[in-house]
Parts: sequence; C-alpha cells; structure tokens
Amino acid sequence: MKFKSMKGFRDFLPEEMAARREVFQSIEDVVRRFGFKEIDLPSLEKMKLFEVKSGEELVDQTYSFEDKGGRKVTLIPEQTPSRARILATEKSLNEPVKWYSTSKRWRYEQTQRGRLREFYQTDVDIFGADSVEADAEIVAVLVETMNKLGVGNAVEVLINDRKLLEDILDMEGIDKKREVMEVVDGREKMSYGEFKDELTEVGLDQEKARRMEEIVSINGPLDEKLEDLGQLVSGDAETRIGRMEELAEILGNYGVLESVKLDMSIVRGLDYYTGLVFEVFDKKGELRAICGGGRYDNLVELFGGKETPAVGFAIGDAVIEELMRREGTWPEEKLNTDVYVLPVSKSVAEEATKITRRLREEGLIVETDLKGRNVSAQLNYANYIGAEKVVIVGERDLEKGKVTVKEMESGEERLISFDEVVEKVG
Amino acid sequence: MKFKSMKGFRDFLPEEMAARREVFQSIEDVVRRFGFKEIDLPSLEKMKLFEVKSGEELVDQTYSFEDKGGRKVTLIPEQTPSRARILATEKSLNEPVKWYSTSKRWRYEQTQRGRLREFYQTDVDIFGADSVEADAEIVAVLVETMNKLGVGNAVEVLINDRKLLEDILDMEGIDKKREVMEVVDGREKMSYGEFKDELTEVGLDQEKARRMEEIVSINGPLDEKLEDLGQLVSGDAETRIGRMEELAEILGNYGVLESVKLDMSIVRGLDYYTGLVFEVFDKKGELRAICGGGRYDNLVELFGGKETPAVGFAIGDAVIEELMRREGTWPEEKLNTDVYVLPVSKSVAEEATKITRRLREEGLIVETDLKGRNVSAQLNYANYIGAEKVVIVGERDLEKGKVTVKEMESGEERLISFDEVVEKVG
Repeated sequence: MKFKSMKGFRDFLPEEMAARREVFQSIEDVVRRFGFKEIDLPSLEKMKLFEVKSGEELVDQTYSFEDKGGRKVTLIPEQTPSRARILATEKSLNEPVKWYSTSKRWRYEQTQRGRLREFYQTDVDIFGADSVEADAEIVAVLVETMNKLGVGNAVEVLINDRKLLEDILDMEGIDKKREVMEVVDGREKMSYGEFKDELTEVGLDQEKARRMEEIVSINGPLDEKLEDLGQLVSGDAETRIGRMEELAEILGNYGVLESVKLDMSIVRGLDYYTGLVFEVFDKKGELRAICGGGRYDNLVELFGGKETPAVGFAIGDAVIEELMRREGTWPEEKLNTDVYVLPVSKSVAEEATKITRRLREEGLIVETDLKGRNVSAQLNYANYIGAEKVVIVGERDLEKGKVTVKEMESGEERLISFDEVVEKVG
Repeated sequence: MKFKSMKGFRDFLPEEMAARREVFQSIEDVVRRFGFKEIDLPSLEKMKLFEVKSGEELVDQTYSFEDKGGRKVTLIPEQTPSRARILATEKSLNEPVKWYSTSKRWRYEQTQRGRLREFYQTDVDIFGADSVEADAEIVAVLVETMNKLGVGNAVEVLINDRKLLEDILDMEGIDKKREVMEVVDGREKMSYGEFKDELTEVGLDQEKARRMEEIVSINGPLDEKLEDLGQLVSGDAETRIGRMEELAEILGNYGVLESVKLDMSIVRGLDYYTGLVFEVFDKKGELRAICGGGRYDNLVELFGGKETPAVGFAIGDAVIEELMRREGTWPEEKLNTDVYVLPVSKSVAEEATKITRRLREEGLIVETDLKGRNVSAQLNYANYIGAEKVVIVGERDLEKGKVTVKEMESGEERLISFDEVVEKVG
C-alpha cells in the first residue's frame, strides 16, 4: 500500500527546504533588526477563539473538529486571535509588544495556485502603540523585507487610511458609510459602471457616486497625493491627512517612501481594520496580493483585554515563492556539504573516521561512507550531496602519512600530510 | 470573554522562545555537521498512515478526525511514517538518505510532567544503509548532541542489539521468543520475582528463567561487556557480537565510546526495531527516558517501498528542557537588543529615525520610541528589552552635532559626534 501527501499539503525535501529556510531567515533577519522578538503559539486552539474574531462563517473554512475530550478545536488559520488572547490575559508585558513568528497555518478551502491547505506565514505585529511612528515602522519593515527578498522593485505597497476615507465620506455628506465601504471593498472586481450602479443602489445620488469614484481613484506617490488631497478636505479629514503626512515624512527618514503609494480604494474588509491599511501588489499584475496588513485597534478588547492599539502584517510563503521564482531571486535549490571523506577500502576506515571526526569538530559539514561503496560510487554520492572537497584516504598514500584532497569544482587534486588535514581542509 | 490556551499546549513568549530557539539550533548544528539535511513534511496526514505503522490502538492516542471532505486525518504524532511514505514513492533519492527535522507533533493523551499534547521533536534518520557505520554515526551524533546541550555527563546512552538478544535466546534453546521479549520489554517496571514469574508463565523453566535474568542483567561499558559476552556465545550470536564490537571500535574512533553502555534489557517494544536499539537515561534516575531510537529495517517495505534499511532517533523538547534546567545548561531566558535610540523630544524625531535606520542597515537589532514617552520611561523600556547601548538624541547635544551613548550595563555615558554613530556604535 502506497501513500501520497494530501492535496494542498507539501513535502519539502532537502533541496527545497534549504531554499525555504534561506527565505525565512532573510525575512526574520530584517524583522529582528527592527527589534521584533520571536514567539511561538499553539497550532491548535479553541474554535471559539476564531468565531470571536471572524464569525462562524470563516471558521467554516478551517480545519475544525471535536477532540476526544469533546472540545471544539481549530487548527489555526492565523495567529492573530492567539496573540489577542495573550494580550488580553498576560499582565507582565511591556508595551510596545513587538512580536514575530514564522509557523504553519491551515485552511480548509479549494486548493489553487498560491492557495494551499497548509502553508507557512510570518506574522509581524506591534501592540500597545497607536502612534504614527508604529504605523511607519510596520510599513518600513515590510518594504525592507521585500527589498531583502529581491522583489522590492517588482511590487508596490499601496496604503490607505480607513479612518481618513470615512472622514471624507462624512465631509461629503454620505451617511451610509458601512454600505459604501462595502462597495469600495469590492471595487477591484467591478467595472466602472457596476461600481457606480452599486453606489446608487445603496442610496448615493449621481453626483455623490461620481464624487466617490473620484475619491477612491486617487492613486499615486504618497506625498504628492496627500498634498492634493489636503487642499480638498477639511475638519476631521484634515487632521487625518496630517497624520498621513507625518507617516510619509517618517517613511522618508527610513528611506522607503519611494516604495509606497497612496491608493484610496484599499479598504481590506469591513470589521477588522481601524486606520492604516496596506497591500503589496505585483506590479505586473500576474499574481494575487503578495501580503497585506494594517491597524486593528479593537481586537484585544474583543478578547476581553484592555484597549490595545495594534498594527501588523502577515506574509505567506506560497505567493512570495511564486513572485521570487518569477523574479529569479528564489534561492538556488541545492545540497550543501563541505567535505566528503572517502575511504578507498575498509582497511583505512579507522583513519577516515578520525578525519571525519576532526573536521566535524571544526564545525564543517562532513559525510563519509556508510555503504561500503567503491571509489567511483562514493565520488558520485559526494557530487550529489554538493561536497566542495573530497578527502581520499588510500592505503598507499596513508603509508606515507598522506591523503589526497580533491576540489570537486575544478577537479584539482593535491597530496597533503595526514596531520595537516584539519589545517588544510578545515 | 477571556481565553486560555488548552491543557498540554504552550505559549512561548519572547524570552522563552529565544532560549528554545538556541537549544534547537544547538541540536541542529551538531546534526548538520554530520551531513543530515533538513526536510519539512505535512503536519496533517491520512490516518491510515499511522494505522499501517502502529496499529489502530495507538491512533487512538492521536488527534484524529474526519475533515470536511470526509477524509480520516491525523495530526502527526511522529514524522517517521511520513518519511517512509516518501521513501516508498520517491524515485530520485540517492542513498544514504540522511534527514533531520525539528517540528511540532501532537498526541491526545493525559498530560503530565514531560508529556504534553503539543511538543517539538527533532527526528534524525539514515535510510538506505544497513552498515554498522550507519549505526555508529547515529549513536555518535546523539552523544555529540547531548554533549553540545551540556548534559553529556548527566546521561548514559544504553544500547543493545535486539537481533543479538534473539540469537542468544535461540542459543539457549528458548523458543517462545516473542513472549519472552515482551516480558523483557516490561522488565523495568517489575521486581526481580515478578520478572522470573512472568518468564515462567510464558513457559521457561526455572533454569532458563534464571539464565534469562542473567543475560538481560548484563550492563556496563560496551567494549568490556562485549568481551565477556563473546566468551559465552556461539553461532549467529557470535557474528552479531562481532558487529557490535565493530560498532564499539567506530564509536571509539568517533571519541564517544565512553558515553555508551551495553544494556541487554533494552528492547523498545516488539514490532518495530530490527537490530540496534538505544535509550538515553538520566543518570540520577529522576526523569523519564530522555530519548531513544534504533534500527528499523522493515518500515519502508510496510509502506509499499523496496527493502530499505533505516536507523534513527528522535528527541522531544519537553524532557530535554527539564534535564537542561536541572543541570543548569538551559539558556538564560532574556531579551536581546543591540541599541535603543532615544529621542528626548519630538523635535529630534527625524535624527533619531535616521540613526535607527543607519544602525539597522549595519545589521544591528535596534528599537526606538513608538509611544512618545519621556526619557525615563524610554530608559525603562530599553532596560526591559535588554538593550546594550542607548543612543540619546537631545536637542542641545544635537545643536553641537553630538549624541550621547549610554552603556546600559556600566551606566557609562559619552558624547560622540552624530556622524560617527555608525562607526562608534555599530
């Protein structure tokens, strides 16, 4: 009886895993430099946790079941509710709480390109800071992450402020804000006509619908567009523009302003985000949104905690892999070994083992024969595992106290003294 | 509504996670030096996979459920069946296949000290090599791992060869081998009297029971005890002793022989292991077995693959943590930050942000104010996050082109030029 892994689940063999590990480390290098600390939380949580955040409907797309003790549990589709659970109960945290984690998430949904049932996700959040400096830090760490992955020029970071958009609706005298925001949220999939029709349907007159279209079409360099907007708005909206201008200034000081565009149509759903929202898009438009995030100041309270402002983002591994492969920045998938120690025959096994041991003690990645193979089979294997050097231990050489070192790339061989192996190879 | 994590599941906040990360990296450093390559496999597999390996009874102690597509699935309690699944189907693997992975496992069982429902485990296996060299490599990497974790002297590695024990039973004319092995497997929990009674119950006469007791009581330095045994045995058992002597010799060449003892009572269950078996015990006897493993040459065939010898071990994180804490080698649980950049007031925010950016570009871990706090609140936070240095950016200093660098441990402060920050702090 033979088995396969299930649809939407992936086996990562060494070559693939080495590349993936390198990508995770690149992301985490950037995030750590910004002072985010790694946490790790359970993969299985009470189902209720996700119902509180997302409602029962979304829970339907998760792996949820009753455990043997009758508890309704869910394989986490995201880590944010678990973070909110801790923020709501843990007394000893010092704000701002800056957390990251790269771990597995699960969703029971139709598998398709970039959509899997098991995937890795890196979550990055700041809790306890409602400042524009926190917003800026989140945007900056995201841009720097994209740069580090070599896709900074292939993407654009579109940002918006939901609060600003709402304030503008107020200013325009549009009162069915929730309904209008819902239409804006769905705009990407609509034609120009459909968008106006939907706005009319929720009660906007022609003039207001036209005005809405004008507002959500604002899209361009953050500082320029804010300046334009600043001349049109007043009241609360003006204050909010002020905050965004400050954001632009800090992003400038962080050297990432050029990567960020204002896009007034970015809303990211209805109930969750409370201020800043952003999404990273493939400039070529071939791929789904690469990642996104924003400010969600109400979540921790929803979990019974004190008012705790929060801002963050998440990157999954599937879409970023597609993008990096297309851009040619996905790491080369190859095995990596420093030295293969090749005993020519069983009679020199002792010396081969000792060399292996000494080179490993130097911190090198070293393999030796485990299958009693002949020289050419061993050389094939050494080649397969990507060995840089092969130390050939032969009887006659050894009688003279020597071993041969073969450089695998050039093929060059040289005889060195047995006692110098660590020095010459290590 | 407030939530807790479930019983048997752990939240790792930054201090704890940093220590755990260090431990995993220590283990993986050793394992990688031996040439093992990292893989990653699904956390969820078809339930059948575990029934094939362990029978339905063990599956009862897992998180198993029916997914929304009606598939019976299991949150993996171990990774070995998934590895066997791949070995049985993947054609492109070059033997020996040397894999490691540190990832989460789940078991639905009563929680107790050292037994959790979610835990980390590092699995290390060699597939495709039936040689004593492969056995030796597995034992050596295990001993070196214990040494690296600083618990090498707190544990003993007890090894045995099930095949040798079976050959000795043959030699002694004991035919109910399976029943006898089962009694031996349970011996640790029995008194001397009970052990003999159970042997008698499965059909051994007094003399044979006495002889069995004598054999399984053999326990001591591997090389010495093998010499003693060698004089008593003949036939197949003698060949098998020869293999173990070779093992001892290679372990000697690897410098780990002193850490290994022969213990003829180690059996490790009935159906799985086929040769070498070993367990790592706390010398003080306070803790459960730290970890174990052995040779299991029949598993891949069970999954429909070709005959594939295999040898390996697994270490879970719970018991090793208890041991390391007792031995005082568990890493210090503290936050780690290189620099905190402290703007004395909003008016110097721009310079503070630029310093932060430049230090991060140098690869340092740097935080700055996100909460608009005063100097003393910022210093408290800098202290909390374990900042080594604080760069204080003040108005008056800045007018002279200077900033203050405070060494947090000594409290020493010095004024440096703004332009030298990277050079002097980086």
